[in-house]
Amino acid sequence: MADFVRNAWYAACWSDELTGGPAARRILDEDVALYRTASGRAAAVEDCCPHRFAPLSFGSVEGENIVCGYHGMSFALDGACTAIPGQRNVPSRARVRAFPVVEKHRLVWVWTGAAERADPNLVPDVHWIGDPGWTSVTGTMRYDCNWILLVDNLIDLSHTAFVHKSTIGTDDVAATEVTAVREGNIVTVTRLMNDTEPSVFYRKVGGFEGKIDRWHRIWLEPPSTVVIDAGGVPAGTGDRSRGIDTRVISMLTPVGNSAVDQLWAFSRDFRLDDAGVDDTIARSIDVTFNEDRAILAGQQRNAEARPDQGMLNNAADAGVVHARRIIDEFLAAERAQETGR
Amino acid sequence: MADFVRNAWYAACWSDELTGGPAARRILDEDVALYRTASGRAAAVEDCCPHRFAPLSFGSVEGENIVCGYHGMSFALDGACTAIPGQRNVPSRARVRAFPVVEKHRLVWVWTGAAERADPNLVPDVHWIGDPGWTSVTGTMRYDCNWILLVDNLIDLSHTAFVHKSTIGTDDVAATEVTAVREGNIVTVTRLMNDTEPSVFYRKVGGFEGKIDRWHRIWLEPPSTVVIDAGGVPAGTGDRSRGIDTRVISMLTPVGNSAVDQLWAFSRDFRLDDAGVDDTIARSIDVTFNEDRAILAGQQRNAEARPDQGMLNNAADAGVVHARRIIDEFLAAERAQETGR
Amino acid sequence: MADFVRNAWYAACWSDELTGGPAARRILDEDVALYRTASGRAAAVEDCCPHRFAPLSFGSVEGENIVCGYHGMSFALDGACTAIPGQRNVPSRARVRAFPVVEKHRLVWVWTGAAERADPNLVPDVHWIGDPGWTSVTGTMRYDCNWILLVDNLIDLSHTAFVHKSTIGTDDVAATEVTAVREGNIVTVTRLMNDTEPSVFYRKVGGFEGKIDRWHRIWLEPPSTVVIDAGGVPAGTGDRSRGIDTRVISMLTPVGNSAVDQLWAFSRDFRLDDAGVDDTIARSIDVTFNEDRAILAGQQRNAEARPDQGMLNNAADAGVVHARRIIDEFLAAERAQETGR
Repeated sequence: MADFVRNAWYAACWSDELTGGPAARRILDEDVALYRTASGRAAAVEDCCPHRFAPLSFGSVEGENIVCGYHGMSFALDGACTAIPGQRNVPSRARVRAFPVVEKHRLVWVWTGAAERADPNLVPDVHWIGDPGWTSVTGTMRYDCNWILLVDNLIDLSHTAFVHKSTIGTDDVAATEVTAVREGNIVTVTRLMNDTEPSVFYRKVGGFEGKIDRWHRIWLEPPSTVVIDAGGVPAGTGDRSRGIDTRVISMLTPVGNSAVDQLWAFSRDFRLDDAGVDDTIARSIDVTFNEDRAILAGQQRNAEARPDQGMLNNAADAGVVHARRIIDEFLAAERAQETGR
Repeated sequence: MADFVRNAWYAACWSDELTGGPAARRILDEDVALYRTASGRAAAVEDCCPHRFAPLSFGSVEGENIVCGYHGMSFALDGACTAIPGQRNVPSRARVRAFPVVEKHRLVWVWTGAAERADPNLVPDVHWIGDPGWTSVTGTMRYDCNWILLVDNLIDLSHTAFVHKSTIGTDDVAATEVTAVREGNIVTVTRLMNDTEPSVFYRKVGGFEGKIDRWHRIWLEPPSTVVIDAGGVPAGTGDRSRGIDTRVISMLTPVGNSAVDQLWAFSRDFRLDDAGVDDTIARSIDVTFNEDRAILAGQQRNAEARPDQGMLNNAADAGVVHARRIIDEFLAAERAQETGR
Repeated sequence: MADFVRNAWYAACWSDELTGGPAARRILDEDVALYRTASGRAAAVEDCCPHRFAPLSFGSVEGENIVCGYHGMSFALDGACTAIPGQRNVPSRARVRAFPVVEKHRLVWVWTGAAERADPNLVPDVHWIGDPGWTSVTGTMRYDCNWILLVDNLIDLSHTAFVHKSTIGTDDVAATEVTAVREGNIVTVTRLMNDTEPSVFYRKVGGFEGKIDRWHRIWLEPPSTVVIDAGGVPAGTGDRSRGIDTRVISMLTPVGNSAVDQLWAFSRDFRLDDAGVDDTIARSIDVTFNEDRAILAGQQRNAEARPDQGMLNNAADAGVVHARRIIDEFLAAERAQETGR
């Protein structure tokens, strides 16, 4: 059974990816055609023309409509067919499923659940991405694993001490205890590491020479947005003006049960216009996330071969346990609704 | 369930492909070894030696026999084993299934149904391919879709206006009404486009300067041979001597339920010995069919994800509807026979 | 159903492959992490950390332990967890399956069945590989077929006359009768070819100018070790000092039902330090085994498409029939044990 939370906004693509014709994405086991109309509005429909099932993402945009590239049927923003070449009348059953779409924080968000519940206020708060006081490096990474394994990975950064030694990893992360607190449906994991050596990455971008006091504060906005607030100041100074503050923001969009897209942003509040820092961040992130990719794909293979074996939680999994419980509650609530219908 | 018409001749390969040893083809979900004997006769057997299941297509031809490349068992044209190395007696159960084969119109045709029904007169009429009054450019293209989707594609050329703008497409094709007529088991679709701009392709090969009157007459010879009679003359002249006449002939051989080989010929009655025209045709066909390939593979994926959803027919599908009805009748007739056995 | 003999030693890798960190292998449909401890001991565990299912082969070795590369859990040689970062107590249920391992004849052998039955004396006798009186060229080849098809191939060398004409094949192999004798669980196939032309390969490495007397003596040590004793002397001389003696040794390790690894050694008792002969052997083996690979993959496809069709045995299959009967007995015995539990 697919384990997706359908009634949620998922980041489908970056706003600047939606130019020059429709784009195809696979989201929660469905093919979706994304497009931007002549007036600039982002839109999404099922990627299948009802005529002969050609993918609408192979088509084109004309005015506010998407036009099938096979035989030219046109569809309006609400999915209703507006024209069929060589035919006067358009039957009312000629329509395609349209998804609610919101464009916000430089991202195109698609609502995969019941359209009447698509409240734009539910879009996750990732405002740093578009905030003029912050600079963001962004990208998209595909992982060959279930989305929940990637939530685990982002919630529990103790793995950075083992997986990411060459970039962001430091021994103190695994050695320092975390506190995990649930408030409502938000779980927050905090780890304070004082008087500690900066990582290779922190030395590069933060310019630290000696030891630092640093923090991780990570929270999950369910079902699958994880924000990592990470930063540091010279040890013992508490001086934010000489420190750095970053947000590593992951918007996870399940492709299917064994693949997930991570639309990520690395936002910072310092050296805003320094392209060299942008470069360093982009390269570090690329190395770091690819290290994760290999492990996560291996986890997925192992999990598929062990459908009845539970994972063994450790002390560092306090946040993971909270996060999984919240996700399970969301999944259970949707199943209850479906059964109740 | 596989939806194939088994009692039919399928084009397995071009005659000139059958030199220099056996060739493997997959036809209607079966592996077939094609070969040409020393006397020049084309033949086909199940691609599996009954000894240890090695593919016979890995073997060689000796005289009128095919010899397994693993341990040397020989098989005659009727499939009977004629020799086993290291052994005097050949048991009568040592045999391989032989398929009826006819070579005609520069093609090797294989009968996949009951051998006793393999009437050479049932080979589809595609005589232009070998006709000395015509020149043919030929080729083979694999599509990752069910064969019926490709029949649809060839019967309804309104798609050329959208898919093939850079080569053969013109707007009038989608805009002009078609007539579809069924006579016996042959459906013929006709579209007459008068006083119209020639396509990029027609200008190149036909040398037209002004407008033309042109026609499409397309017919399906069931189960899966489609002939497109397409041509044009200078507008209002009716002068065939200043026009061009072509046949785009598609012999579709299902590989399985989600793949089909199109053995195609583009035959023309003009500039017969002009290699430059051959080149232009080969390049246009390559571009054109690859444009179709992408869409057809997308249709197939969408169709597999929607096993219970029917397609929505438009006015331009008059021919397609006839064609599908005829194919359904053929399929139903075979199922009835199988049940009746 | 998987047809594996689990209570057996399988060659997992060559001893010299196990340096520089853990290695992953798939054996009998299970992922195994192989490693060598600081003290030099070879070891094998299930390639899955019980914590979050990361492959342990992505980890590292510290002292006598393997350490998970994701969150740093350590496991001792017996599979017991010895340390969990950020946590004082290690629960006793934190353990991974450890496989019995023996290192012998330059190979790392893994026991895939019940640990209490893992008797080191049961390691197949392939002592020539490490014997100072012999020189061995070694390698590993993956075949996309069931392991029993590869046993067939090695037991019945009549195929060399057809498949390997360019290297080791000669016509007399298929033409000469074999004797096949079973003693206990060992089947031995013998073929004596007197006054015969040497193969291309024998001429190269043996330096034969005229005809030779040669022999094949092949035995299966169940479930899947095949030794080919092949050699020759100048015809009529019986003079071993002017002849050559070789062992082609295949240790077959099933990957799954449709793939098998052949860890092979070509051992010889002549020109021991001649690197040119090593080269000739390596190149001939590469050509020869790749010729087999193509056929065996074809057999596998054909066998999967014919689950209910039996193979047709020929006279040359006397050894193969014995070998399959012994393998069937081993498989049946294990099934009986499993049912009896």
